[in-house]
Amino acid sequence: MAVNFETALSQTAAQVEDALNRLLPSKVGDRLQEAMRYATLGQGKRIRPFFVMQSCKLHGVAEARALTVAAALEMIHCYSLVHDDLPAMDNDDLRRGLPTTHKKFDEATAILAGDGLLTFAFQLLADGGESPALIAALAKAAGPDGMVGGQMLDMQAQSTGFASLEKISAMQQAKTGALFEFACTSGPLMAGQDASALRTYAKHIGLAFQIADDILDVESSAEALGKATQKDKAKGKKTFVDFLGLERAKVEAARMVAESKLALIPYGEKADVLHQAADFIISRQK
Amino acid sequence: MAVNFETALSQTAAQVEDALNRLLPSKVGDRLQEAMRYATLGQGKRIRPFFVMQSCKLHGVAEARALTVAAALEMIHCYSLVHDDLPAMDNDDLRRGLPTTHKKFDEATAILAGDGLLTFAFQLLADGGESPALIAALAKAAGPDGMVGGQMLDMQAQSTGFASLEKISAMQQAKTGALFEFACTSGPLMAGQDASALRTYAKHIGLAFQIADDILDVESSAEALGKATQKDKAKGKKTFVDFLGLERAKVEAARMVAESKLALIPYGEKADVLHQAADFIISRQK
Repeated sequence: MAVNFETALSQTAAQVEDALNRLLPSKVGDRLQEAMRYATLGQGKRIRPFFVMQSCKLHGVAEARALTVAAALEMIHCYSLVHDDLPAMDNDDLRRGLPTTHKKFDEATAILAGDGLLTFAFQLLADGGESPALIAALAKAAGPDGMVGGQMLDMQAQSTGFASLEKISAMQQAKTGALFEFACTSGPLMAGQDASALRTYAKHIGLAFQIADDILDVESSAEALGKATQKDKAKGKKTFVDFLGLERAKVEAARMVAESKLALIPYGEKADVLHQAADFIISRQK
Repeated sequence: MAVNFETALSQTAAQVEDALNRLLPSKVGDRLQEAMRYATLGQGKRIRPFFVMQSCKLHGVAEARALTVAAALEMIHCYSLVHDDLPAMDNDDLRRGLPTTHKKFDEATAILAGDGLLTFAFQLLADGGESPALIAALAKAAGPDGMVGGQMLDMQAQSTGFASLEKISAMQQAKTGALFEFACTSGPLMAGQDASALRTYAKHIGLAFQIADDILDVESSAEALGKATQKDKAKGKKTFVDFLGLERAKVEAARMVAESKLALIPYGEKADVLHQAADFIISRQK
């Protein structure tokens, strides 16, 4: 029987919440650990962990092992949100409808909580006995050639704007795409199998996800989204929508989703949930 | 013939500088990578890498392999300085006589350069094929149970002060001691041998190093030290010197050095340079 995507996503979210709650340090009265937990637990679609779990399932990786990797990846995603929200960066007060970590605690605590989450994620993977190759892949996706590098390009664009569609694409591939790619390819990487099909899938849904984000930023209300909208416009920062227009952006996102599905052909019906996930990327309302 | 410590230290510093220069990303015109290099290259005693190299030498680990681990550790040390210097943290404008990274670049770039260095350090170790056990040991030393946790305790003490000598010791063991311990035990860890003697050595020189730092903060001029002095006092933060007085602090540092030397007995003459290093810790002028 076919698995429903929404059900699979919410089941994974609950599993990941449980894993994060269990794995994160939890010394009572420890302000740093409280901030690390605040920044990670609670809301969030857990979309990256979802791709880890699906990728692992397709390649026969045990669920407990997959969950630890999924939790470590989510910690890295959450640390990046904490640092990106800082006053010196995007200066956001609200995240998922709640005060950002530096508003709830203070700036110093937020900086350190981010540092702690990033470091702890690598500790988790290494303690779990994951291979140096997997650890290197995550570090590469999260580091100067990946997410951190992409965030830097994004910051720089706030003063200069993006000169071209290619430059936005490159920024997004680094800032968001690299972690998506790690998530989608983690299964074959952990199983020592070929990751090329899922890599192609990931590249396309990563871009679709970001174009969809830009569209949401224009079309949604802050209330529905749980965070400030049209901030890009307010900062004079150019988005996919600026270069393509709203309609062409939607067509482009749909094209990326179609390409991502082509890459799943080798998996046949086993990849049904990933097909649905690709559709969700562009149909979501927040 | 006996090796002279000062010569060994400066030789290691040159080797490590060369390794860092070679290993750090270096895309021309990439502001993030420029900031990562600015924060890492140039000055610095490279005392942690020195202990890595000596520890590896004592346990027969190949020099090239030791250098990569030493460079990764130094990147983590340097990232911590970049984040600690931020306005929301210690708010320092000067580091080793030069503008701190956020003064030379800007706050956002400094935050990201720190994130990039931390992530890249793990990438280096994993790409070098180091074991999950070694990677976990470094992450533990640098994370919420180690350096980041210690920095948090230090930040909190800026408003409340340390209540006792034990609390300062615990903070210093986490903030500074844990990375020293990783450095000193890296050789046996990488060789799969017993690390207990070097762990004892490390614990004592770590504490000696920090007591000596507090003494230097009181006795040195900013000119000699290349950074602001008496900042702890200005912030009302209690140090070892406050609890022990200057003379007893010196005696305690000397006692720690003596204890550290006892731990080296199993190594005999081979550990001569580490004996000298322990003496250097409390005799250094900056």
